[in-house]
Amino acid sequence: MSHWFEAPLAEINVTSQQQAELRQGVLTKPPGSLGQLERLAVKFAGWQGEVKPELVAKHTSIAIFAADHGIAAEGVSAFPQAVTVEMVKNFARGGAAISVLAKHHEAALHIINAGTANSVAEVAGVVDCAVANGTANFALQPAMTEPECLKALAIGQHVINEVIADETRLFIGGEMGIANTTSATAICCALLNMKADELVGAGTGLDEQAIIHKASVITAALDKHQPLVKPLEVLTKVGGFEIAALAGAYIAAAQKGIPSLVDGFIATASALVACKLRPELKEWLLFSHQSAEKGHQRVLQQLDVTPLLSLEMRLGEASGAAVCLSIIDSALALHANMATFEEADVQAG
Amino acid sequence: MSHWFEAPLAEINVTSQQQAELRQGVLTKPPGSLGQLERLAVKFAGWQGEVKPELVAKHTSIAIFAADHGIAAEGVSAFPQAVTVEMVKNFARGGAAISVLAKHHEAALHIINAGTANSVAEVAGVVDCAVANGTANFALQPAMTEPECLKALAIGQHVINEVIADETRLFIGGEMGIANTTSATAICCALLNMKADELVGAGTGLDEQAIIHKASVITAALDKHQPLVKPLEVLTKVGGFEIAALAGAYIAAAQKGIPSLVDGFIATASALVACKLRPELKEWLLFSHQSAEKGHQRVLQQLDVTPLLSLEMRLGEASGAAVCLSIIDSALALHANMATFEEADVQAG
Repeated sequence: MSHWFEAPLAEINVTSQQQAELRQGVLTKPPGSLGQLERLAVKFAGWQGEVKPELVAKHTSIAIFAADHGIAAEGVSAFPQAVTVEMVKNFARGGAAISVLAKHHEAALHIINAGTANSVAEVAGVVDCAVANGTANFALQPAMTEPECLKALAIGQHVINEVIADETRLFIGGEMGIANTTSATAICCALLNMKADELVGAGTGLDEQAIIHKASVITAALDKHQPLVKPLEVLTKVGGFEIAALAGAYIAAAQKGIPSLVDGFIATASALVACKLRPELKEWLLFSHQSAEKGHQRVLQQLDVTPLLSLEMRLGEASGAAVCLSIIDSALALHANMATFEEADVQAG
Repeated sequence: MSHWFEAPLAEINVTSQQQAELRQGVLTKPPGSLGQLERLAVKFAGWQGEVKPELVAKHTSIAIFAADHGIAAEGVSAFPQAVTVEMVKNFARGGAAISVLAKHHEAALHIINAGTANSVAEVAGVVDCAVANGTANFALQPAMTEPECLKALAIGQHVINEVIADETRLFIGGEMGIANTTSATAICCALLNMKADELVGAGTGLDEQAIIHKASVITAALDKHQPLVKPLEVLTKVGGFEIAALAGAYIAAAQKGIPSLVDGFIATASALVACKLRPELKEWLLFSHQSAEKGHQRVLQQLDVTPLLSLEMRLGEASGAAVCLSIIDSALALHANMATFEEADVQAG
């Protein structure tokens, strides 16, 4: 039986991309002098199939996937597990960073429960897709069963196909889940064949001693769950519901022809899983920022991608990606609205 | 006789800054997790004297100073000198990168002639403050006389006090002038005691051979004009009218309590001159981006400042600074509108 996530991705419009590249060469500036902004415009031309792609901030759909992690019981986070649902309420009420940024950019914000330990039933505006009340503690047993993993991946597909607006031009996925840097680190170690101490970081704010403990928890789990090779196997054994949902969303978005702007370390771990499942997905992903979480830079290097920003952010919940929105719109406005050398009667050097 | 630029700068409101820092500590996020965005909000609190500073993009005044350089005769640029005025026209007509970015951010754009070789008399919307029809060729003689240098500096003061809106919350200065990376490089070499080949770069797009020639032109000029120690002496002998005007604008803005967002390599050379004249000015400057021009990173390091963006831009005309505007507004929106742990009833870890 084949899975939904094995269906083909949309095709990038190479003709529009080439025409956009030609246009960049005749705008009134030295060729290449807008750096990454030029490459952004060309990418969106390919995604939208338009020489002059339209601005995306107001046509961006943000979905935050929240879930809890059994591994939190091992003392790997600076915050208690109850904070996951407290922050879900904060997202919904408009007080969290991503709530403020979504409003500031006029982007739509959707909050998805992929499986929190505490109930979110009474929180207005949360789409409840919970797989279970949090994953199992992967220090002791697999984080989830394979059916649970497939269900979590399908949450992402559901959100892309049923929750976000049809006219979405850009998808941003975010996550909230106490202890999820531990899961993300374990995933990246397994898929990139790296050691825990190469990637482990402070998460929400561990001290040095606690980081050493976190690394030992990850190392023991990686040993316990061998073999950890296939992406689905890794996701099932040491993953999280929100991480799986995000991976599913990236693939579903690309199937629908919607590019995704990847947030920080945990979102990048999701993107890594998704790219291992579907290597051609990388062409539909844009990496927004390099976070201050230690492992992020290494994982971005392994993926061979250059993020747009590096502002020492390490908050997650799609905040880094949302800050990028205006950079993208600046790039697209320049591309669409600058005069050519011919139009402006300027000598082209 | 004392100069206008020796008058005191405005004072930063340290109390507002401290209150803003306390506020950052109680917003619903791990402390420090918004990285540079937190420090931005704190800086603006000090500048505006408000715990919650207001957004700046719509209250930003951008001024582009254009001028020509006699050194262009030495074949140090990929574009002919006529392009300076052609681009001034393009700014005014709305076709240049900075025109598009100013409109996109709803920021005011002012175009100032500080001394172009060709006439801009017929171009509507240009403020004509020309010192002369371009500087002299500093391969042969000083770029300007000391009175000309003082006049050029005063253009910046005039623009801050008479041209931009009184309610300006942020000043961005930009420049246009064929061959001005040569002047900027010479200035930075002299003031930082560095060699031409440490800082010289491709400008608008020189090939390797032409860069070597450009370095030799700068080295010979630096030798010819010794001593090159005092900032005014350096500016007079190897500077440019737009570079001097920009330096004056940064100082005048700080005297008026307006912070400046510094653009790329040439604007940073202006900031360097201004900081050599007034070391306390640095507290009123924000460095927007690190450009692809080779010397920029070195000069930023010497100034001991961290730019917000690094997008491989190298266009000048305030474009990198303008792209930053939305990052600043995101930072200020987060600071003003996020809930505190107490307001959101979230456990603070």
